Amino acid sequence: MKSKKVAIVGASGYSGEVLVQLLLNHPYADLVAVTSRQSAGQTLAEVFPRFASHPKSKTIRFSGPDVAVLATQADLIFLALPHGVAAEYAVPLLEAGCTVIDLSADFRLGDAAVYRDFYAHEHPAPALLAKAVYGLPEVYRDRIRTSKLIASPGCYPTSILLPVIPLIKAGLIRPEGIIADSMSGVTGAGRKAEVDYLFCECNESVRPYGVPKHRHLSEIEEQLSLAANSPVTIQFTPHLIPVNRGILTTLYLDPVAPCKGSEGAAHLAGQIAACYQNAYENEPFVRLLSGKALPDTKNVVGTNVCEIAWRADPRTGRLVVMSAEDNLLKGASGQAVQSMNILCGFPETAGLV
Amino acid sequence: MKSKKVAIVGASGYSGEVLVQLLLNHPYADLVAVTSRQSAGQTLAEVFPRFASHPKSKTIRFSGPDVAVLATQADLIFLALPHGVAAEYAVPLLEAGCTVIDLSADFRLGDAAVYRDFYAHEHPAPALLAKAVYGLPEVYRDRIRTSKLIASPGCYPTSILLPVIPLIKAGLIRPEGIIADSMSGVTGAGRKAEVDYLFCECNESVRPYGVPKHRHLSEIEEQLSLAANSPVTIQFTPHLIPVNRGILTTLYLDPVAPCKGSEGAAHLAGQIAACYQNAYENEPFVRLLSGKALPDTKNVVGTNVCEIAWRADPRTGRLVVMSAEDNLLKGASGQAVQSMNILCGFPETAGLV
Amino acid sequence: MKSKKVAIVGASGYSGEVLVQLLLNHPYADLVAVTSRQSAGQTLAEVFPRFASHPKSKTIRFSGPDVAVLATQADLIFLALPHGVAAEYAVPLLEAGCTVIDLSADFRLGDAAVYRDFYAHEHPAPALLAKAVYGLPEVYRDRIRTSKLIASPGCYPTSILLPVIPLIKAGLIRPEGIIADSMSGVTGAGRKAEVDYLFCECNESVRPYGVPKHRHLSEIEEQLSLAANSPVTIQFTPHLIPVNRGILTTLYLDPVAPCKGSEGAAHLAGQIAACYQNAYENEPFVRLLSGKALPDTKNVVGTNVCEIAWRADPRTGRLVVMSAEDNLLKGASGQAVQSMNILCGFPETAGLV
Amino acid sequence: MKSKKVAIVGASGYSGEVLVQLLLNHPYADLVAVTSRQSAGQTLAEVFPRFASHPKSKTIRFSGPDVAVLATQADLIFLALPHGVAAEYAVPLLEAGCTVIDLSADFRLGDAAVYRDFYAHEHPAPALLAKAVYGLPEVYRDRIRTSKLIASPGCYPTSILLPVIPLIKAGLIRPEGIIADSMSGVTGAGRKAEVDYLFCECNESVRPYGVPKHRHLSEIEEQLSLAANSPVTIQFTPHLIPVNRGILTTLYLDPVAPCKGSEGAAHLAGQIAACYQNAYENEPFVRLLSGKALPDTKNVVGTNVCEIAWRADPRTGRLVVMSAEDNLLKGASGQAVQSMNILCGFPETAGLV
Repeated sequence: MKSKKVAIVGASGYSGEVLVQLLLNHPYADLVAVTSRQSAGQTLAEVFPRFASHPKSKTIRFSGPDVAVLATQADLIFLALPHGVAAEYAVPLLEAGCTVIDLSADFRLGDAAVYRDFYAHEHPAPALLAKAVYGLPEVYRDRIRTSKLIASPGCYPTSILLPVIPLIKAGLIRPEGIIADSMSGVTGAGRKAEVDYLFCECNESVRPYGVPKHRHLSEIEEQLSLAANSPVTIQFTPHLIPVNRGILTTLYLDPVAPCKGSEGAAHLAGQIAACYQNAYENEPFVRLLSGKALPDTKNVVGTNVCEIAWRADPRTGRLVVMSAEDNLLKGASGQAVQSMNILCGFPETAGLV
Repeated sequence: MKSKKVAIVGASGYSGEVLVQLLLNHPYADLVAVTSRQSAGQTLAEVFPRFASHPKSKTIRFSGPDVAVLATQADLIFLALPHGVAAEYAVPLLEAGCTVIDLSADFRLGDAAVYRDFYAHEHPAPALLAKAVYGLPEVYRDRIRTSKLIASPGCYPTSILLPVIPLIKAGLIRPEGIIADSMSGVTGAGRKAEVDYLFCECNESVRPYGVPKHRHLSEIEEQLSLAANSPVTIQFTPHLIPVNRGILTTLYLDPVAPCKGSEGAAHLAGQIAACYQNAYENEPFVRLLSGKALPDTKNVVGTNVCEIAWRADPRTGRLVVMSAEDNLLKGASGQAVQSMNILCGFPETAGLV
Repeated sequence: MKSKKVAIVGASGYSGEVLVQLLLNHPYADLVAVTSRQSAGQTLAEVFPRFASHPKSKTIRFSGPDVAVLATQADLIFLALPHGVAAEYAVPLLEAGCTVIDLSADFRLGDAAVYRDFYAHEHPAPALLAKAVYGLPEVYRDRIRTSKLIASPGCYPTSILLPVIPLIKAGLIRPEGIIADSMSGVTGAGRKAEVDYLFCECNESVRPYGVPKHRHLSEIEEQLSLAANSPVTIQFTPHLIPVNRGILTTLYLDPVAPCKGSEGAAHLAGQIAACYQNAYENEPFVRLLSGKALPDTKNVVGTNVCEIAWRADPRTGRLVVMSAEDNLLKGASGQAVQSMNILCGFPETAGLV
Repeated sequence: MKSKKVAIVGASGYSGEVLVQLLLNHPYADLVAVTSRQSAGQTLAEVFPRFASHPKSKTIRFSGPDVAVLATQADLIFLALPHGVAAEYAVPLLEAGCTVIDLSADFRLGDAAVYRDFYAHEHPAPALLAKAVYGLPEVYRDRIRTSKLIASPGCYPTSILLPVIPLIKAGLIRPEGIIADSMSGVTGAGRKAEVDYLFCECNESVRPYGVPKHRHLSEIEEQLSLAANSPVTIQFTPHLIPVNRGILTTLYLDPVAPCKGSEGAAHLAGQIAACYQNAYENEPFVRLLSGKALPDTKNVVGTNVCEIAWRADPRTGRLVVMSAEDNLLKGASGQAVQSMNILCGFPETAGLV
């Protein structure tokens, strides 16, 4: 298979680091350049000692981000930059003919006004919004295949959309009243020198944040609205917990058909199982749990897998769905590589576990 | 103030250990005996090195639990035993004239049939259920004052009942559709030698468990039903997170009056604030957070305080309430000592922070 | 007992926070002022939510550090400032008649040249060095009683000096060749917004640092030299481990009399035990472990106690001594309060556990 | 390359789990069987959900350990069993013609009397001791190539022997007086349901253990004695720290030629660097750190690499060497796979990072 030259802009954060790891060890991608203002001049081995055994780690040196140079070096560019900044790079890189996979929020929404509402600044390149494909392969695989601009989904959205979309599409749950309660590891906050994310401020601590209007709501609701064919508003509460990696989401959903009592619950559970089987049985990175198993982040961290389990509650008539993923893999860099694999015609699981 | 002789039955677990700590340093309680089958014969200093600097730690020795002896030694007995076992001790201790504060689930419910449904065995002493007082001082302070048998509440129930009861009583939220999503530190599982609670099975892991019918639902629903004057069924999902101590609960509640839009939300938030002020402004162990502050377990661990914050969501019309407590203090031993203080006529905050 | 008005300069760091906690709850000290540039204007309750239940937390407001004002408010001032800065405050406060307990390194050394060698800048107030007393009560209790300027020891030094000084003074170990290998929790690095101390950089990580010439060597060696009556140079390696609080130090010492073989080792162990008994049996904050017990930071965190255990190795003839302390209590703020108690004529254990 | 059929006996512990992971993903090894009494009957996917995405995880089922069956299934068997038990399986498997790589301590020593002294029972198969090769590839690569019985080294020994052996062989350090101070993650204690290894007993705790005569001393000293050509006795203190994986060892060594003063220290540091370069520059799994870099377990966890750094101390004349490894990879299963690669003629790095 013909390999592809790839580069990463903004490779010194946590998702950048994981992208480096995945691409250094990818069978078909050829990592040729990484950029970072703060690490410019240093080799990969110096910035990330854990990759120092890889031969390329001594030869690839961080550069400052120069679009013109990058466009001559690589065919496909990953942007691991803060929102707002990513768009500034995407525009010239696309013009120069590169394919862009953006891990920021800049191209995840269809509507620049919603972006402004949630991100508190004007969208830097609204004209591109219509061209971007939301990089959730389980939903948009075909469109990813032919796109030049992938907006790779956020970590929380992935953990919510994968379990909810099939149920909405199948008409099994009401699109109103959805509640998503999530817990995330601290890498989700990025490698930022802020007191709030110091070891001693996070260790032995659990706390909600961004209540009730976290930015990720915008893309979650847009995607759920598309699935429901009507506007969907959800309740979402993220919590910070003292683990490095992993997101656990617990969803509270209302079945369309009432399910009270143990018979009704068993019937609903069967319908949900069939719906998920239908949606995901051939998906390499969605794992449906059966029996007594419930998701546990330790079973997905280090992998690109999203685990899903569900319980129909005979007492309340409600459906509880739980998911677990690695926020830096299926929630960020792993999913971006999955999109790259699709887009480049590589086996979808290449370089991923 | 006249001191009281107290003893602890089953003092080698986590809540027993915290009881020991509180009672060794209590200004009016005089800890005279501790029992534990597995630690019998050892001194407090040997079993709990961290208390070894306390003079009593060298003189108080664990004994096997002998009711006749205990009844001659102490006036008030704390039971820190597994459910089912606690009742076996409570019966003869009460008959011998002792006051009993039970930290197990054995006397928390009014109905032996509900107990059997949730705890999977016959209640060992159903006749006592009617005599027990549910030891939540913020709700039952007066009844605690004169009781001989206190059923100290569970850790999750405390974190749910304190924020929900005033809102139900004030008619501000509907008693239907309540959702409680909780995260607990691992001391909640007790000091049991099980693989599931090994360091490496809990560290870097988050997981739900006991879904959808955790045992604590029984006492939560009984108390909420009493507050609502009608049967209440709730949705409750506990999660295990890698901290030693602390519970964070996020509650999703439906306001009785719709609150959509920013004006409606602000109005509701004001009503909630007034309701909580009214209920808790003089409570020493409930802290209402204002401004941007949200609960964080690290701000309550080591204290008997339950923190509460709330947000009316203008987008969904729902009310989100969050609470934090130390599962071993306000969620167990601290609350039990608070009940003792009330019952014995000590200052309610004696020996507690 | 007559209470004392006290203030804390630089109270927003970790040791400042613990000082606040100790002084708010102290039976004889009356905390009247706290300063912090970054928190100026906020109340204690706002900056440290965990103290919000204390009545004073709402009335005491952080101010910027104004020496003239402080001197009128308080008799005794704790300085919890970076080295170099502390001395600038100490000079005018002493001139204004205040007693100063300094938690920085500024007055721990007798020799300004050694200070310059280890701290890389000129000492800001060399004339005061001779007046300061090294605030290790177990060694300098009498001098502390009458001092106006206490240099409270560093966290690592305390964990090393308490176990080593009695053995040197008794002539049981050689002062040459001492090795101290220490592990510290992350609060030791202070509440500084640096990437190195982010949760994800410290969690699931252990690393040495400051090898081979950590600043604390200067005061350790000065104190050991005083004990030995001859210059002592030691080997010291600190390591950062993922806990909030606690220092564990393992010391490798050469007995003066050879101890090879099990008889020799038993004899030496007996001598060490006698020496420590003699030095510490009446010390409230040193705990000598016996039997199979070894130090564990979890048994001292939250207390002002330093645990010590020792093993004479019949195979190597060497003595291994291990100590554990809470770096923020016996290693910093607890010890400073212990000095205050001595100096003010309060019971030495007042406000400490 | 011709693949090899391999099996794992005792695959349900932590090192067994990592072996499963490595062998499932190995390009040339073909995992055909896993055994475990407690997991017998379950599939790999059921026991280890994190491997559930691997196709083989659904087809490979744990069996009870039946030597006759295993010998027909696999050519090479890994034993991940407790010491004492491993030898019982090794004997018949070798007789049946299998190659055995044993991860226990059973064949690491040359002398059955030393084994009895350290492991407190008679060696179960003393005749095999002479046939076993100590599976440290950096030292015994040639002998591993032709061996039928590999005794894979312990975790602590690997972290000590790799840095020390070259220095002894080169005559740069004295073989007397070596001190090794190590910290290990809790997987080192195995997946045993014991209270000491519960989350809440290890979290926020650091503690030494096995002082002064840990079992691993026996193999460390035997290997160092072989390197020195004379009996070597060392001082070794292991500590348990709250991380899942990783060992950090700090070594205190005496240079043969005195190195006091900055010139002497620089000269020694250069000699050490040259010695290590000579020993390890072509070793794929030893990483020599330069400049200011010091080992950090987070840079090696998940890899088969051992990091080494050193400092000559001009103040004490001593050499401090620090190493870091993943106790389950280079300290156990990764190293065992490295031996397999050598022994089977696979590329030495196959299946390892």
